[in-house]
Amino acid sequence: MNTEPTRAPGRPRSPEADTAILRAALELLGEHKHVAAVSVEAVASRAGVGKATIYRRWSGKEELFTEAVATLRSPLPEVGQGASVRDDLVAVFTVVCGDLQSPLEQGVRLLMMSETHPEIAARIRRDVFAPRNEVVYQALRAGIARGELRADLDLTTVLNLLVGGAFVSSRSDTGQSPRQRAELLVDTVCDGLRAHG
Amino acid sequence: MNTEPTRAPGRPRSPEADTAILRAALELLGEHKHVAAVSVEAVASRAGVGKATIYRRWSGKEELFTEAVATLRSPLPEVGQGASVRDDLVAVFTVVCGDLQSPLEQGVRLLMMSETHPEIAARIRRDVFAPRNEVVYQALRAGIARGELRADLDLTTVLNLLVGGAFVSSRSDTGQSPRQRAELLVDTVCDGLRAHG
Repeated sequence: MNTEPTRAPGRPRSPEADTAILRAALELLGEHKHVAAVSVEAVASRAGVGKATIYRRWSGKEELFTEAVATLRSPLPEVGQGASVRDDLVAVFTVVCGDLQSPLEQGVRLLMMSETHPEIAARIRRDVFAPRNEVVYQALRAGIARGELRADLDLTTVLNLLVGGAFVSSRSDTGQSPRQRAELLVDTVCDGLRAHG
Repeated sequence: MNTEPTRAPGRPRSPEADTAILRAALELLGEHKHVAAVSVEAVASRAGVGKATIYRRWSGKEELFTEAVATLRSPLPEVGQGASVRDDLVAVFTVVCGDLQSPLEQGVRLLMMSETHPEIAARIRRDVFAPRNEVVYQALRAGIARGELRADLDLTTVLNLLVGGAFVSSRSDTGQSPRQRAELLVDTVCDGLRAHG
């Protein structure tokens, strides 16, 4: 029996080339600041591939940049499987805080601020950020279901606090590890500020 | 007796011209993305003044942009004067959330991300953001002193959560007023997520 996997027509895809192309796109964006200033030629040249390789693989910049951001993000852990909501959130935000330290994040921020290409930001929000936010919501809903968390929480506000807190804390160089940052953020939000006495 | 105020040499300063210059600097930055791409000529031309007017008033782009960001920020209320810490924080973050909706914020974000002009971001952080952060710390310290808040809080983490939460919530168009956003953020952090039973 032939166990060779079926191949799509054309040359086989190389994962190394894909990664080099996606990194090159974000690097160039960090340097040039404008999506419009990043040409497919420049991405191809930085990644050491031909333009045709890029066009064969992505329909355009919207797809290319969306996949670049998706690739830059590490997978999030499973949540709601019996651990405490605190441990779930610390696990998720340790990954988030780690990802935010990548030097390629500059490119991601520029994409999300682009006024000339709002469709790219919208697509990244839908295809990359929304499914990741859903993991946080899942953890919170599991915590409510188990009676650990208040049932009247505004979940969007909780998400905004944790994501925003991770974002701001990643901008200052405190020497804390991603896990330490995540623990401070999650414990402060979970326990609240008020003295209970 | 002559009650005419003493005048500095040269033409009197016009507050309207100053405002036009500072707005023009941030507008152009929002359009061109690069600090280096915003020339003093272009700022002068957009503001309808001569280059000399700008050079007479600001030593360079670092001073110009720092004052532009400072001017864009509304004054924060007095805190720690007897109201509850919750009311202090809501009052402060209502102003913060309002400011974050300005269309000129795009320019501020670009300044804070500039890799080519880190000295501008550092100066804005020192001269504009740090004194405003200090108001939040004052409110929190007053809350601890009155026994309203836990004494073991990590105040930097609380600041990062609230500032980051305000930042993220201002990016989505939910139709909420700045005060509603501020109340959701502050009440969620003050009360915490946990069910108390």
